[in-house]
Parts: sequence; C-alpha cells; structure tokens
Amino acid sequence: MIKAGIVGGTGYTGVELLRLLARHPQVELQAITSRAEAGQPVSVLFPNLRGKLDLVFSEPDLDTLLLCDVVFFATPNGVAMGMVAELLEAGVRVIDLAADFRLKDADLWQQWYGMKHACPDLLDEAVYGLVEVNREQIKQARLVANPGCYPTAVQLGFLPLLEAGLIEPTTLIADAKSGVSGAGRKAAVGSLLCETSESFKAYGVPGHRHLPEIKQGLQNVSKAAIGLTFVPHLTPMIRGIHATLYGRLTESGKDLQMIYTDKYAAEHFVDVLPEGAHPETRSVRGSNMVRLAVHQPQQGDVAVILVVIDNLVKGAAGQAVQNMNVMFAFTETEGLDEIAVIP
Amino acid sequence: MIKAGIVGGTGYTGVELLRLLARHPQVELQAITSRAEAGQPVSVLFPNLRGKLDLVFSEPDLDTLLLCDVVFFATPNGVAMGMVAELLEAGVRVIDLAADFRLKDADLWQQWYGMKHACPDLLDEAVYGLVEVNREQIKQARLVANPGCYPTAVQLGFLPLLEAGLIEPTTLIADAKSGVSGAGRKAAVGSLLCETSESFKAYGVPGHRHLPEIKQGLQNVSKAAIGLTFVPHLTPMIRGIHATLYGRLTESGKDLQMIYTDKYAAEHFVDVLPEGAHPETRSVRGSNMVRLAVHQPQQGDVAVILVVIDNLVKGAAGQAVQNMNVMFAFTETEGLDEIAVIP
Amino acid sequence: MIKAGIVGGTGYTGVELLRLLARHPQVELQAITSRAEAGQPVSVLFPNLRGKLDLVFSEPDLDTLLLCDVVFFATPNGVAMGMVAELLEAGVRVIDLAADFRLKDADLWQQWYGMKHACPDLLDEAVYGLVEVNREQIKQARLVANPGCYPTAVQLGFLPLLEAGLIEPTTLIADAKSGVSGAGRKAAVGSLLCETSESFKAYGVPGHRHLPEIKQGLQNVSKAAIGLTFVPHLTPMIRGIHATLYGRLTESGKDLQMIYTDKYAAEHFVDVLPEGAHPETRSVRGSNMVRLAVHQPQQGDVAVILVVIDNLVKGAAGQAVQNMNVMFAFTETEGLDEIAVIP
Amino acid sequence: MIKAGIVGGTGYTGVELLRLLARHPQVELQAITSRAEAGQPVSVLFPNLRGKLDLVFSEPDLDTLLLCDVVFFATPNGVAMGMVAELLEAGVRVIDLAADFRLKDADLWQQWYGMKHACPDLLDEAVYGLVEVNREQIKQARLVANPGCYPTAVQLGFLPLLEAGLIEPTTLIADAKSGVSGAGRKAAVGSLLCETSESFKAYGVPGHRHLPEIKQGLQNVSKAAIGLTFVPHLTPMIRGIHATLYGRLTESGKDLQMIYTDKYAAEHFVDVLPEGAHPETRSVRGSNMVRLAVHQPQQGDVAVILVVIDNLVKGAAGQAVQNMNVMFAFTETEGLDEIAVIP
Repeated sequence: MIKAGIVGGTGYTGVELLRLLARHPQVELQAITSRAEAGQPVSVLFPNLRGKLDLVFSEPDLDTLLLCDVVFFATPNGVAMGMVAELLEAGVRVIDLAADFRLKDADLWQQWYGMKHACPDLLDEAVYGLVEVNREQIKQARLVANPGCYPTAVQLGFLPLLEAGLIEPTTLIADAKSGVSGAGRKAAVGSLLCETSESFKAYGVPGHRHLPEIKQGLQNVSKAAIGLTFVPHLTPMIRGIHATLYGRLTESGKDLQMIYTDKYAAEHFVDVLPEGAHPETRSVRGSNMVRLAVHQPQQGDVAVILVVIDNLVKGAAGQAVQNMNVMFAFTETEGLDEIAVIP
Repeated sequence: MIKAGIVGGTGYTGVELLRLLARHPQVELQAITSRAEAGQPVSVLFPNLRGKLDLVFSEPDLDTLLLCDVVFFATPNGVAMGMVAELLEAGVRVIDLAADFRLKDADLWQQWYGMKHACPDLLDEAVYGLVEVNREQIKQARLVANPGCYPTAVQLGFLPLLEAGLIEPTTLIADAKSGVSGAGRKAAVGSLLCETSESFKAYGVPGHRHLPEIKQGLQNVSKAAIGLTFVPHLTPMIRGIHATLYGRLTESGKDLQMIYTDKYAAEHFVDVLPEGAHPETRSVRGSNMVRLAVHQPQQGDVAVILVVIDNLVKGAAGQAVQNMNVMFAFTETEGLDEIAVIP
Repeated sequence: MIKAGIVGGTGYTGVELLRLLARHPQVELQAITSRAEAGQPVSVLFPNLRGKLDLVFSEPDLDTLLLCDVVFFATPNGVAMGMVAELLEAGVRVIDLAADFRLKDADLWQQWYGMKHACPDLLDEAVYGLVEVNREQIKQARLVANPGCYPTAVQLGFLPLLEAGLIEPTTLIADAKSGVSGAGRKAAVGSLLCETSESFKAYGVPGHRHLPEIKQGLQNVSKAAIGLTFVPHLTPMIRGIHATLYGRLTESGKDLQMIYTDKYAAEHFVDVLPEGAHPETRSVRGSNMVRLAVHQPQQGDVAVILVVIDNLVKGAAGQAVQNMNVMFAFTETEGLDEIAVIP
Repeated sequence: MIKAGIVGGTGYTGVELLRLLARHPQVELQAITSRAEAGQPVSVLFPNLRGKLDLVFSEPDLDTLLLCDVVFFATPNGVAMGMVAELLEAGVRVIDLAADFRLKDADLWQQWYGMKHACPDLLDEAVYGLVEVNREQIKQARLVANPGCYPTAVQLGFLPLLEAGLIEPTTLIADAKSGVSGAGRKAAVGSLLCETSESFKAYGVPGHRHLPEIKQGLQNVSKAAIGLTFVPHLTPMIRGIHATLYGRLTESGKDLQMIYTDKYAAEHFVDVLPEGAHPETRSVRGSNMVRLAVHQPQQGDVAVILVVIDNLVKGAAGQAVQNMNVMFAFTETEGLDEIAVIP
C-alpha cells in the first residue's frame, strides 16, 4: 500500500486518475490539490465519485505532498518543472502527465512550448514513460514523463516496422483523430458542444507540440533522420484517438502481421487484431488497451497501421498508473483490468 | 463459485451481462447461446471482450443450460416462457431480463404483448426483481422477473412519496427519456444514427408496455387506484434514462428530502442527491447506481422527482446481477462496484 | 427594401439572424455591432457566411443604428433597455431578442432577472411578439419583445385547450427539453461537448426565468390563476426544443385534434400533425416551423401535447424575422421558407 | 421550367434531391418512384417536406418517367444501367447518382462492383459529372454519371497540384473521413447510433470502390501511373466528408496557395480558404460548397490539402442539381444558394 497525491486534479486527466486510483488495491489516495477548488469534495465536481471516494481538494501544499510515495502532476505544462526537484530530493517519486519532461532537449522544448525550461538538469534523468518501450528504466525511475496521447498511439504503431527496418523513416505520415476531451476541461468556445458536435476538422497542421515528441521517440530506433508529417484532427466524440499511419515499405513479401504479433506478444495492453481488421475507438473506451491492425492495401508498397487508444486512459491517466505499477513493482495490470463499455 | 448461462446474448443486455459477469469473482460463465452466432467467439461480435472472455456462442441447447446454477434470459419477449419450466424443474434458477414474468395478470400481459402467455401458472411464483422493494422474496426465488428499464426508474422515484401517502396516486405523471440503446441492437431504420442523432421525440404516447408494469408496482403501496400518465422519449445518446416525475402533494410543509434519504439510507445502489441538485445520466453510465433528487418548485403543491439510471445496467444487466447476488447470498454489490466513466 | 441593424451579433441568435437576413429579399443588412469583434469580417467568425455576406462587425455606435429602419438586439439581457428609447425616438423600430421587454411587470422582471429595469415606461408599449397571438398589435408596433424559446413552444401548445376551457388552468405541467445551443456561444464548462454530450439532465427546477413569461402569456386567456410546473432539460444535441405538455381535461368526449387544426388552420408556421403522431425536433431544424401533436392517452382525463421548434429559429431569430415581416407589411413567410435538412 | 423525375427516392440522397428540387425555380417535380412506398406521400416518410411538397411515391413506371425532361437515379448500384437506354432513346436526359456509369472500363467495374455491366456501350458516352472538370461536356451530355462523395473531395483537392506537376503522382495518400449518412438509410446494425456514435474507425482499407474512380479521374491529368493509397473512415456525425490529402512535392519554393486560388477563381462552389486555415465540415453542411485549404508543414516536402464537402449535397444530390443546371443551361447556382446552418 503506497500513498499517492495528485497535483491539479480538476481536469479530465485528474478525474480519470481519481477513478482509477480510487479502486486500485495498492494505493491510498492521500491528497488531491487544486487552488481553485480547495475545500470542495471531489464528488461535488465529479458526481460519479459520490460514495466511491471521500476526498476533498486541498491547497497545493508541498508539506502534504512530501508525505506521499508518489505524486502525479495533472497540471498545465510548466507547473511540474517548478516543483519536482524538491519532491525528488525528499524521496517522493513523480509522474508528470504534462509535457515538462518529455523532450530531452531543453531548447527544443522552449521552442515548442514557448517558455524557458525551469530545471533542464532533470531532463536527462527523466524516463519517458512509454512502458512498452522503456519498462526497465521505468522500474528504477524517480521521475517519469508520461507520454502524450498522440505520441503513444503513433509510436506504438510505427515502432515495429521501423525497428525491423521495413519502412522508410523519411516519409512517414501520421493522420490522427482525437475526441474532444483531448482539449481538456477548460471553458473555451472551441470545445463547446455546439462548435464541435456534428463537425470534423484538422487543426495544428503547420505544427503541433506532439510532433517533436513523436520524432524523438522514433529517432531512437532509426539511423536515418525521421521525416514525419503529423496531422491531428478533432472528431465529434468525447474519448478516443485513432491514428492512421502510413509508411513506405522498403521490401516486399514480408509478413507484416507476424512482425506485430511477435513484437507485442508479451504486452498485456497491446492487442494486435487479426489480419484485415479495423479497430474501433469504442473497443478501448475507458480501458488502458491499445488495439491495432496492420494492412498492406492491394499488396502494394504502403503499410497502413490503424491504432486506437482512449486518450484519457492509455493516452494519459491509465498509462500513468501503468508507470506507477512498474515503478513500485506491482503487477503491471493492477487496477487497470477494466473492460471497455460497449455500446 | 456458481455456473451461469445466458440465453440470447447478442443484444446490448447480453454484452452488458458478459461484461459484468466476466469480472464477477463468484461466477463462472458456462455458456452463452445464440442460434444466429453459434460457433462464433463472443469477442468477435464484441471486441471489448478480446482477451477478457474466452467464450464461444453455442446453440440454445437445454442440456448445456441444465448444467448451470443460474440462467439469464436476454431474449426477446416470449422466449423465456417457453423454456423456464424445464429449467426450474431441474433446479436451475432463472432470471428473465425480458417481460415474460413481469405482470401478474396473464390477460393483461396478452393485451399488451400481443401473444398468449405460455406458462401463466408460473406468474404467481415469479418474483419481481426490484431488489430495493422485494429483497426478501428474491432471496428465496427460483424465478426472478428482472424489471424494465423505465419501470425501475419510475418506481424507485415515486415509491417513497406514495408509501408516505404524500402524493395523489390518481394524477401521477412520468415523463421519461431514454438513450437509443433501449431500442436494442436490431437492424431498424428508426435506430440509425442518422435518424436519431441530433433529434428528440416522444414515442408510444397512446400506450407503452411499461405502463401496466409501473402501475402494478405502484398499486402495491396505494389504496386508491393508480392514475398514471407515462410518456417515454428518445434522446440522442447511447445510454441512460432520465425520469422526471410529477406528483400533486396532499400536504404542505413536509420535508421531502428527508423522506427520500430515510427511505434509501441503507440502499447501496440508490444515491439521494442533496437538496436542489439535478442528477445527470452520465453520472451513472456503466454503473448500477440510481441517482435521484426531489424538488418542490417554489414550495408549491407539486413534487418533482428526478431519477437517472443506466438503462443497460440498473435498468437491465446490472439489476440482473444484483438479483443473482441476492439469490445466491453473495454480497449484493459483488461485481457491481464500478465507477461511472466521466467524461 | 429596408435597412436592418443587429446589435450584438456574435452569439448563436446573431449568426442565425445573419443567415436569415442575408437571403431576405426585402432587407439590406446595414450594420452588425460587436465591441469585441469590431473590425472583423463576420465570415471569419462564421465561415458558413463566406461569399454570402460581405459585412464587418462594427462598434455599437448609435449613429450607425439610427440609419436603420429596424434594429434587432441579439444581446444579453439588460442591454437593449439602455438603448431602445433613443432609437424609437428617432423612428427606428426595434425587435429585442433578449428578455428586457417580455414581462409587463417591472418588479417581476427585477425579481427574476436580478437588476432594476432601466425603462419600465416602455413595458406597456412593447408588444409581445408571438405572432400567432398578437399579429394585429405587431403590425403597429414600434417595439417588439421577441418571445423566449421555451415560452414559444409551451404557449402555442397550451393555448388552444386553455382558450377552449378544456383543461384546468391550475395544474398545468410543461416538461421541456432543449438542445445545447440554448445556452449560447459563451465559453462555459457546462456547455462543453465533454460535459453535455452523451448525458441528459434537468436544470432550473426550483425556478427558471421563462416561467413568469409563460404564465403571463397563458394568464391572458384564463379566468383562473394559472398554476404551472415548468421543468427544462438539457438534451445532447445542438438545436431543437421539444415541449411535452400535460393538462387535466375538464370535459370528456371532445375532439382535441379538431380544436388544434381549427385554431391553427390559417397559420403558415404551425403544423398540426395527424392524430397519433409524434413530432421530431429534426423535422423543424433550421426552419421557422412549429410542429405539434395532441394526444389523449387511453382516452383518459389527461391531454398530452407534443410541440417541437428550432430554438434558434422559431424560438429566436426566425420569429424575429417573422415579426419584422409583419411590422413592415411584408409577406409573413418572406425569407423564412426553408425546408428543414433531414437527415 | 422542366419536368424532373426521381427513381428510388427513399434514401438519403433521395430526400436531399427532393429538398433541393422542391425549391428549384426551374423544376417541376413530376414523379418520385419507390416500389416499397408506392402510394405513400413523401411527407409521411420525410416530415420536413410537410407543406412543402405535395407528391406521392409511385411505382417505378417507365411511362411516367418518359414524360420527364430529366430523370435522376437515386437507386442502389446496378439499377440505372437496366433502365437508362430506353430513357435516352426517348429523349430523356439522365443523371445517375449511383456508380453505374462512373468507370469507363466495364471489366474494372465488374471487378469492383461484383456484377456484369448491363450496358457497357453507354460507358463511353456517359460524362463524369464533376462540373469543375467537365463543364463543357456536361452541357451536351445526355447521360451524366454523378461522382461519388469521396471522389469529389479527393479529386478537387489533388487536381491543382497534379496538373501543375508539383506532386509525385505515384505516392499520393488520401485519408478521408465521412459521416454516417454515407452508409445510407438502410437498416443495418453497423449504422445504428449505438454502434457508430462515440466511436471512430477506418473501414475498407484493403480496397474501397471509390479507389478506381479516384484513380481514373487523377490519371487524366498525369503522365505517370497514379499510385494512391485511399483510407476511408467513419466519423460519428450525420453529414460531412473531410479529406486529408498528402502529396510529396517535386519542387520547393512554389506558392501553393496561389495555385489553388488561381485554379478555382471562377468556381462558385469551390472556396479556397486563406493560408493557414482549417476547414470544418459544418461550414458546408446542407450546402453545395467545397471548402479547402492547402498547407506545407514546416516548409517541408509534403503538401497537405484539407477538403470538406457535405457528402449528401456536393457529394451527391447537390452536385446532381448542379449537373442538371449545366445540362439545361440554367444559372449554375440556381436552387443551390443555401447558407450552411451554424451551429
């Protein structure tokens, strides 16, 4: 039984963390902080938690957090980097669900996030928390940078073929679609039901912050420089990411299906669908599963990989819990065994 | 550990039963039958079950079902009544999620369901499975008639005030709204996304089959004959029922809030919200909870009760599992402790 | 050809007015004001207007408005009452889509709207713009108070039976459901897609501002004091209001259908459906039509009236244009002949 | 004033044709046929047409159709090819909204549509009705093959850069997303709200019938053989197609924006958005407009073109009316000047 704290728990990743941790057999939720909601029971903001979690938002007070074994940051970008050092010094482990520690290059971070990095010296130590890639380092990590939602889907989709050297690393295309919860719980005209329902659009085509994060992850397994076009879209639903990935095959006649089933054979949270399948986002809604399928249309020279995740679970809170499980040597699936609700 | 079977598991109540029973610690799923899908793994029809449930649809064969301790019927109306007698004789307990055993009066049943009842002699024995009302009888029951979705919400909402004699039983109004999953998984133009999304309508105003079921349940606690106007509506979402109930108060100055909190104080699955609250259907989505609030607008002579349930859980599969828990003396909440997913 | 101005055109009633007036053969759009968006072309905010309307938001400047024949206020409550007097003096006619002039009693207005009325002396002159009720007065009106969305649906539904003296005026119930556009285009957490989609709830049960407006309108045709319970709900769609109205019949054996068809025989925008029908909100989406049906379930003592409108058209901008047509002696349907888009 | 008939008008393209033609000043709707609905007023099936169109479905009788100047086929694939010859002989012009005459190669047609073509001799004469490409031929055409929805969006997006020789024709990628109305109004489990809402998926990745149609159209302007990967997706909304197109640039430093604005300068129904814009499908909902934007992310070697249409208007019925306008020398925008409804 460990003690966990959450900083900034009023957004959608926050309530999702609460939902998952409230039922986690190894975790006692010690504190959830929110300056705006301090004093308010969490179940007032999130009525699904009524009777399930008897916790009150508190001021973001370091003393309380220092009592925790692990602290999750579900804050806007730029908050965690101001608080992490003290927590680590005191022996508290940290999982940051924001972007503060995802990029290894502080200048690149500043360029994409528009602010100077507050503790660049921790960037080296921080482990990128894509468990399927970095499980061993995560076991030892004090500080884990929980991956972005798009980067999780895109990397898990491309990595098997990239590692196998079967696709050109220079001409990758990732066409990704996200539900509106990816935009968070802030009051913004662009996220209103009347603005997003019954409509579909791309956004951020000139450049999206997840682009350098994805490239960094793919670069690790490629000798040639990664060339990636990444286009995110907003789709009229609450949860779910669907990444449609295109890679130009460098060899013909390979059994792509086997490459994926082999690669992910031991991974509990990655489900490779049978040949010819098309994963639906609802098949992972509320769960930490990744489902993917690989296609080679008309046996041509393009591989098409379809990947679905729940952006708030495997793309955020669920992956954070998976990281925690690995860090504390719990069973990796502990608290994450939920079945997606269909319909 | 008991053995459970499901007859007719290809609809939405079927998959919901599968989801709940797959994780129930006291249940081993023995068989799920479907003539149309026999031989097909359930996870092909319902990809959320991939890796969670290794079961194949089988022919609806009595021999297999006789090996079960309990059999759930998730079939169209009229199927269970042809098979139940043999199962009961063999000592198998039955929970019927269809309407075959909900009405005590076989003539009334025939009038509303358009077919002659096949085993009217079991109607007396069958226990109406609204646990909050009939818990003691359910403990002993061989045959439970699982309530309809609307009747669950409407009865739990009206009963406290009716029992207390505080509303006129003759002028009740139940304005109920359901998500489209209430119409089931059959191919029907009227349930297409393009016909139901972005639209709202009433249906069945001249008469809906849940009307006699509700009246029968309310009549049990009223001396005067129940007069009820029941208007169901279709609302553009997948899951959820919201019942808005109107009753004319017979006395002024009563503390309505206390009547509800007292009545349901010991009920795990009924959550009475604080005064002034408005329950949302999403707060119970995927869970077996009922959330309700009672209002007396401008301290006038009308009580307004707002009740929400998930029509597929407390309104169908969850309530069936709750009934099973009671019948087999399991903890009533076993396998039903999920937290609704928000957002 | 008249000149029209719109004050405060950045909300959903504003863009709907633009859409309707841009194609109105008798209207030249002179100005649309918005302090926040001054200088911005309307087609930047509303891309559906690209190529259709070459207009730029301007400062809310009285001089410009004084050049108009008619000015529409699509502003928050409390704005119009500060500007109307000057416009009327200058001979400009005014149609207020907000609530400033809907209630005849300034004290009642203050009680429900929480501010002192700025020009109570105009309340008497203002004509309540429910054309089907007040057509003759509207012809002469300088100042029209465009009705609220719920009040339009509820009044048109109840009036025929109230006028005929066939329902008790003291026990009326209006259970109304609205799409999310009724909450406007302001950035508010409660209107986010992730908060409102896939959920249904009541709101304002203790008291909603449209209650006194509806009661005032119904009182005009009733000798007894109106007793009305009004419960609004939020339904997960963009446009549409469905009002389900309940009245206790004072006589049996009356042909309710005929009362409605007679009452609305000459009304272009009110479509009484055949007996037994259930109107859908989508059948009026984008159009100024009202569709309604009257039921008497099981020939009992309750009349159920189902009414649908598009809250942004007949419930706001369309009704305003209808009022303008009447005020300026245009054909009443001019610019309002659109067919609802299905699906 | 011409006389028009519609064969098979009970689907979504049928009702959309009715909506557009009912208000077309140059068209008298003579007949709409449907074997299943013969004798039924169209306004019973489609209540939005109540009071707008006084027409009754009739048997698909050739004699009636021969009285028309133009006949639209809104039928399943394979119906038109059995009836067209007789109509043409009698001097009736035909616009086929199905796929019967879209491919020039009868063998290719048979391969993709799974049936032998019934009148291959008309394939040469049939004009592919993409007005922006074939306007001159359409003016003279007796038989027009109305393009598919995806092909309309994809071709209009790729053609300018292909014609200019600025992208590799061999490595094109079209990632397209469609609302559910693209699947039609037939009762199918896969189109139920509960199956498609709140979910996103790809389909037809191994091969979709629109692939050869798109390739044929693009091939006309390319010397090299077109290599195209086409992946369609289902997005949870009623109307709209968003095509995201990727082409590898063969030259750097070109002004892509100008190429599009020049190409479509004279086209009323193609709106090239300003640089950096992202079109939304709702901006064309219910209208015949195409809106598109061209991007060159990070000034790299990939062009990304974003194209939106309403699949039932520019992707079906609206384009058919546009073709009719051209064939009969009406103003091309006649009856097609509607403004998309936002929100």
